Amino acid sequence: MTDSPMNVQLLLTGNEIMSGDTVDSNSAMIAQQLGALGIGVYRKVTVGDDAPLLQAELAAMVATADLVIVNGGLGPTIDDLTAAILAAVAGVPLKENPQAVAHLQQWCARRNLQLNAANLKQAMLPAGATLIDNPVGSAVGFEMTLGKCRVICTPGVPGELRPMLDAILADLAARLQRPMERHILRLQTFGLGESTAQQLITDNLPDWPPEVELGFRAGAPQMEIKLTIESAAASAAQQRCRDQLQQLFGDHIIGEGDTTLAQRVLQLLRERGARVATAESCTGGLIASMLTRVPGSSDGFHAGFVTYSNAIKQSVLGVHADTLAQHGAVSEEVVREMALGALECAGADYAIAVSGIAGPDGGSAEKPVGTVWLAWGDRHHLRSRGLCWPVERTLFQTMIAAAGLDMLRRILLGIEEEPRYFGQRRIRQS
Amino acid sequence: MTDSPMNVQLLLTGNEIMSGDTVDSNSAMIAQQLGALGIGVYRKVTVGDDAPLLQAELAAMVATADLVIVNGGLGPTIDDLTAAILAAVAGVPLKENPQAVAHLQQWCARRNLQLNAANLKQAMLPAGATLIDNPVGSAVGFEMTLGKCRVICTPGVPGELRPMLDAILADLAARLQRPMERHILRLQTFGLGESTAQQLITDNLPDWPPEVELGFRAGAPQMEIKLTIESAAASAAQQRCRDQLQQLFGDHIIGEGDTTLAQRVLQLLRERGARVATAESCTGGLIASMLTRVPGSSDGFHAGFVTYSNAIKQSVLGVHADTLAQHGAVSEEVVREMALGALECAGADYAIAVSGIAGPDGGSAEKPVGTVWLAWGDRHHLRSRGLCWPVERTLFQTMIAAAGLDMLRRILLGIEEEPRYFGQRRIRQS
Repeated sequence: MTDSPMNVQLLLTGNEIMSGDTVDSNSAMIAQQLGALGIGVYRKVTVGDDAPLLQAELAAMVATADLVIVNGGLGPTIDDLTAAILAAVAGVPLKENPQAVAHLQQWCARRNLQLNAANLKQAMLPAGATLIDNPVGSAVGFEMTLGKCRVICTPGVPGELRPMLDAILADLAARLQRPMERHILRLQTFGLGESTAQQLITDNLPDWPPEVELGFRAGAPQMEIKLTIESAAASAAQQRCRDQLQQLFGDHIIGEGDTTLAQRVLQLLRERGARVATAESCTGGLIASMLTRVPGSSDGFHAGFVTYSNAIKQSVLGVHADTLAQHGAVSEEVVREMALGALECAGADYAIAVSGIAGPDGGSAEKPVGTVWLAWGDRHHLRSRGLCWPVERTLFQTMIAAAGLDMLRRILLGIEEEPRYFGQRRIRQS
Repeated sequence: MTDSPMNVQLLLTGNEIMSGDTVDSNSAMIAQQLGALGIGVYRKVTVGDDAPLLQAELAAMVATADLVIVNGGLGPTIDDLTAAILAAVAGVPLKENPQAVAHLQQWCARRNLQLNAANLKQAMLPAGATLIDNPVGSAVGFEMTLGKCRVICTPGVPGELRPMLDAILADLAARLQRPMERHILRLQTFGLGESTAQQLITDNLPDWPPEVELGFRAGAPQMEIKLTIESAAASAAQQRCRDQLQQLFGDHIIGEGDTTLAQRVLQLLRERGARVATAESCTGGLIASMLTRVPGSSDGFHAGFVTYSNAIKQSVLGVHADTLAQHGAVSEEVVREMALGALECAGADYAIAVSGIAGPDGGSAEKPVGTVWLAWGDRHHLRSRGLCWPVERTLFQTMIAAAGLDMLRRILLGIEEEPRYFGQRRIRQS
């Protein structure tokens, strides 16, 4: 990267974004594509279809930015203002653009539509603007350079923005004549909180190199750690940081890129030619669903049982009535019998079994909401643990389903050490 | 509403939003809730975790706005800057807030966690700030009034923002001392596209009253139709529109408010004292998971079977080897035997069974990716249909799981008419 990075700003317009009726995903699409070129977005402003406000924001951006991408407001209706605003900021009139008219004529002809006045409004562009083709929709894009700032206007419909953006970015890459320098390395983790991770890094890696930007993205169930460098010269430092994080967080790291727990488990099963079966009570099919979201999951997963009542735990998985009566459905004994039943019924190599109290009702003093028992392993070595994870129902289901997958991942990797999240949440030594 | 509307601006912070790694849905949530109070958002600015830039943007907002809501940057890591920025703009130091410390101590105690230095950073608030409780997470919110501008800082985690926002909005409504005039009526639908719905309304309801604002929110699997009025005087018109939509879309309307297909199905089952069992192949446990996400689902759902391979379809659900050999796993015959097997194994009153090709691989000329068979009903009257719904794998799973639930909803309601989406996607007359 150069010493002074390109100042890129985004101006988004539309009442439906402003009111929250539509969630803006366009700016994320633009930012990701720019990011791949090593260009960060400095600032993003969103306003409704309000001419004076739009004009003030665009004028302010043009005064400070190298590149402004405007998104939205290119449509045929009166609340689509972008062309008029750019003309006003540039101090030029709107003019019917013959290329844009030709595009509209073709677009209508392909659809057996009559070109109407509302459509033709989309051909009124600022005088001197250069047209950008829209291979999908009726609204052409356009651009102008005002002083040192290039302004590119793009359509708000995501399906129209996408192909236009490809062309814009290809052109930008060619103009920059520079290789993509920014490199992002992402690590997926499970069982680490953001504050724990930050604290561990602060305590253990005081010499973190400034050229490796550290970022976190806490999600449910996984947390992503992101190492960003802006120059190829920092590659070695980035690798060193990765290795240090690997040492520090060890088996809490699932993989790189977008790897999910389910993907990793299925990959490990595939390497062993083995299969897992699931026996779920409180997670209600979510473990099976997480596995089967992965294309090709049929290699490692053949059968899942959602046994939501005691009677079904008995009839389907062969859990003993005595065990249920003595220990209750949420118990180590029951969850182990569920796992053994699933192994048996499915003829599988490994099983994950879960029984717990997802809430909001069903808790007791002895077994409060959030109490859960997990069993996992093969028929020769079945392990089990009880945890208390008292969070909202769907988050509980998500985290416990992920914990089940994580436990299987750990034994497939031969990791005997207990994960951090067990220590904090264990309810009884097994 | 007053003549000069409140000037509300949003300041969003976070590198993950700026880079496009995360799509910001928080600002839509905030805008919608403000909208319910009749307050529009004037302007929204998004920047990364960049202290000088954040400070400049906040200072500019404070100079022009009546209310600024800052979202994000409250976490424990060094890239969380909001408290420091507000302190700088206000010209006050950061101070450890005892209430915030107490909140963190309780939060950690409930989770059996050790309070660490990274956590404690979240208690360092601008001197003079008022704390806003976070009933869910560790990061408290806080607010200050600078000149004529109220600044409210909220957490970036959507699940933490939501409850905090309820409290903030209730307080705002009380301060404004104005009745909530705006009333939104939301209808949940399944099986209608946005453009189809819009076209049907345009064609059939030409006299739509201007005082009832019509909005759509297309989601997967459901689409929401929103009828907004700004004054109680329009209530009758709103009700009339609702009735007209009910006539127009009829059985494609699932319910009002936030009703999900699974909630509606469980409610109908509860009214009948009946239970459903699921037998899933391509949806891989998702139908069971959608049902068990609903609190109290154990009333109507006891057992689900994920039979992902032919062998398991035979051994667990009793599908005949002959049927599989003759018709293939994705066939009307197999899906009917799956449903009967599930009814039998679970002792259930109703069953939903699904077998299809979710892709991206596994398709053939005869049965392309997206081909799926559904069976549903009770042992006396089992129905089945084949559809082709060729979309991306996880969307396919979502839509087909929802279609299965919708089919059950329809027979529980005695609806014999086929839904619109069947006509468009049917592959064979049953």
